[in-house]
Amino acid sequence: MSKILSVNSGSSTLKWRLFDMPSGEMLGKGLIDRVNEPISTVTIQTKDDKKTYEAKSTDCGALVSDMLSQMKAMHLVNRLHEIVGVGHRVVAGGETFSKSVVVDQDTLVKINNLRNLAPLHNAAEASFIKTFSNVLPWATEVAVFDSAFHSTLPEQNYLYGINYDYYRKYGVRKFGAHGTSVRYVSRRAADFLGRDLKDLKMVVLHLGAGSSATAVVNGKSFDTSMGFTPLSGLMGATRSGDIDVSLVTYLQNKLGVSSSEMIEKLNHDSGLLGVSELSGDQRTLKEASDNHQAQLALEMYANAVVKYLGSYIAEMNGIDAIVFAGGVGENSYEMRSQIMSHFNYVGATIDEKKNKTNGQEIDISAADAKVRTLVIPTDEELMIARDTYGLIEN
Amino acid sequence: MSKILSVNSGSSTLKWRLFDMPSGEMLGKGLIDRVNEPISTVTIQTKDDKKTYEAKSTDCGALVSDMLSQMKAMHLVNRLHEIVGVGHRVVAGGETFSKSVVVDQDTLVKINNLRNLAPLHNAAEASFIKTFSNVLPWATEVAVFDSAFHSTLPEQNYLYGINYDYYRKYGVRKFGAHGTSVRYVSRRAADFLGRDLKDLKMVVLHLGAGSSATAVVNGKSFDTSMGFTPLSGLMGATRSGDIDVSLVTYLQNKLGVSSSEMIEKLNHDSGLLGVSELSGDQRTLKEASDNHQAQLALEMYANAVVKYLGSYIAEMNGIDAIVFAGGVGENSYEMRSQIMSHFNYVGATIDEKKNKTNGQEIDISAADAKVRTLVIPTDEELMIARDTYGLIEN
Repeated sequence: MSKILSVNSGSSTLKWRLFDMPSGEMLGKGLIDRVNEPISTVTIQTKDDKKTYEAKSTDCGALVSDMLSQMKAMHLVNRLHEIVGVGHRVVAGGETFSKSVVVDQDTLVKINNLRNLAPLHNAAEASFIKTFSNVLPWATEVAVFDSAFHSTLPEQNYLYGINYDYYRKYGVRKFGAHGTSVRYVSRRAADFLGRDLKDLKMVVLHLGAGSSATAVVNGKSFDTSMGFTPLSGLMGATRSGDIDVSLVTYLQNKLGVSSSEMIEKLNHDSGLLGVSELSGDQRTLKEASDNHQAQLALEMYANAVVKYLGSYIAEMNGIDAIVFAGGVGENSYEMRSQIMSHFNYVGATIDEKKNKTNGQEIDISAADAKVRTLVIPTDEELMIARDTYGLIEN
Repeated sequence: MSKILSVNSGSSTLKWRLFDMPSGEMLGKGLIDRVNEPISTVTIQTKDDKKTYEAKSTDCGALVSDMLSQMKAMHLVNRLHEIVGVGHRVVAGGETFSKSVVVDQDTLVKINNLRNLAPLHNAAEASFIKTFSNVLPWATEVAVFDSAFHSTLPEQNYLYGINYDYYRKYGVRKFGAHGTSVRYVSRRAADFLGRDLKDLKMVVLHLGAGSSATAVVNGKSFDTSMGFTPLSGLMGATRSGDIDVSLVTYLQNKLGVSSSEMIEKLNHDSGLLGVSELSGDQRTLKEASDNHQAQLALEMYANAVVKYLGSYIAEMNGIDAIVFAGGVGENSYEMRSQIMSHFNYVGATIDEKKNKTNGQEIDISAADAKVRTLVIPTDEELMIARDTYGLIEN
């Protein structure tokens, strides 16, 4: 019996899902919250059981080891040796990694060296990979890079309109993010439509706390809204998305902060939260129906998506399918409706009644629509498990 | 006989055109180059005469006074009193000026106070207004703001996805530029099509050394690509246009410069020049047909226009007319062709033979095109003269 653990770790959280492979059945999931703090909260969930406990250790290896014992006690595994592989989401693969890889010592060093591109992520991810390889030494550790799917971007789309030397010397280019999600969603969308991915022009809108749009042509990433870092592109819950770059200097002078502190503010105090001065959560903003700034923030968010979607339709000279995914894309029919009200001109009209269905795979297009509009719940964890299993089997 | 002088001054250059009003006939034009330097070059051109001379004075009033005498000697005017008004292009009107105004002392102070928004322009422009009011004290001085046309932008399009307080306290918003040009071009386009401006959705592409796209709905600016400063939006000859804002900090650290020096580089060493490492001039790049970076720069420039045009079509949910203006928009059929090859999906196909005509008003659409594509040479100077004459007459 092959079981694969998909691990998605942040600077303070470790989320996992356990899959039976090759069936892809999810057996359980859980998380360790506040890793590295004196008291962590561990949650483990099986199909019919859920357990939460506090763990008092700052030793990450001990935390994980203990959690694995609990998983065994809850019958998620009979023997730990059933876990043959651990797949790790890694945010930044740079130009070094264009696909998922089995992690060895050399890979680990390279992941660490790319921390420049994702200061909050890569170092933490490398450290968790090391932890799991210590605790489950027989399991194959696999790194699945969020940027890998975008390694097919053509040169004119990954370069910026700046001095070429900045690319040559400092590696400045667009990397994008959400690649694992977009890879999963674009494949599912093609299957769902019963079409060959190679014949489709689509845009995948991964809308959540962090939001991105990706143009997928013939199954390959052709353009994407996140850039050198995830700050660029669409507005997010707390990210500004694209703004006039002159504002970095202008505002740092007004606020008396450094330029890196200004970038911090643009990452964490901006977007929906910044405009509304209320919340970065779209549900909270929706409820505040009398609050002008809350409604304005939602309108600006929708408009940013409309503009990126429109720009990619032009870049591709047409479109076959528009696909919504991510927390907001899957669950906010209001946001989908607001965005899609702009695309009659291209024949992408939706059936408002079908659109009311949230959280499941569905074609929400109007009967006579020339362009299909789909909702495809994303499953990065399954994609990670598949990549991991694939690398073990081959 | 009413003559109006349209003045377009930069930090080191003063360009002018003389119009007979209300006919709008251009009588002559000229410039003073290297104003403020020990030796300036003055050029005056009438319909059948041209004179160039060197002037040795750093006193701007003396330079202008002397030039006006020369204009008289060349019979552009019989008496200086025929010049009843001088219209000045002013780059930044901020939220203070939403239309052209007669300049009094108070206005001059306000224009000066807005220099924050256009460091290279407003102070110089205010100083030239003062000069002309001294030299031609009987003439009415009028300020025509480049940003005024964009004062109709809706809130969701002029605000950025950042803390609302930055707008409240520091006036951070999108102002746009090229407004006088876009106002002229959008009106001419409607006339040319024999349509009422109020029934049209169009995008005006003002493409030159500085490039912008503006969505014009019912004759009003609805969205525009330049922002708080002209750095944002499309790539320019030397401007980067939109990039990941994180790069300001990343690159300033790599290059060991301040963030304002970095913004300087993004304004002056980037864009076509930066990518090609050859030139910011599209003609030079076109000729370098074997130079990969030169061709890449042109492709990236075209792609940026394609994406903005596509985004505005979506924002407006359709389009009636696409209008090319500006040095590149009017004179580069190759660039127009490259851009328009992306818009078959929306029914905007062009007639490649008609498109070969440069520099004149023409409908280059294919016979069966649903969307009209026009070339309309811009005339900001005439627009300035009309505003000036209008304010004198009323």
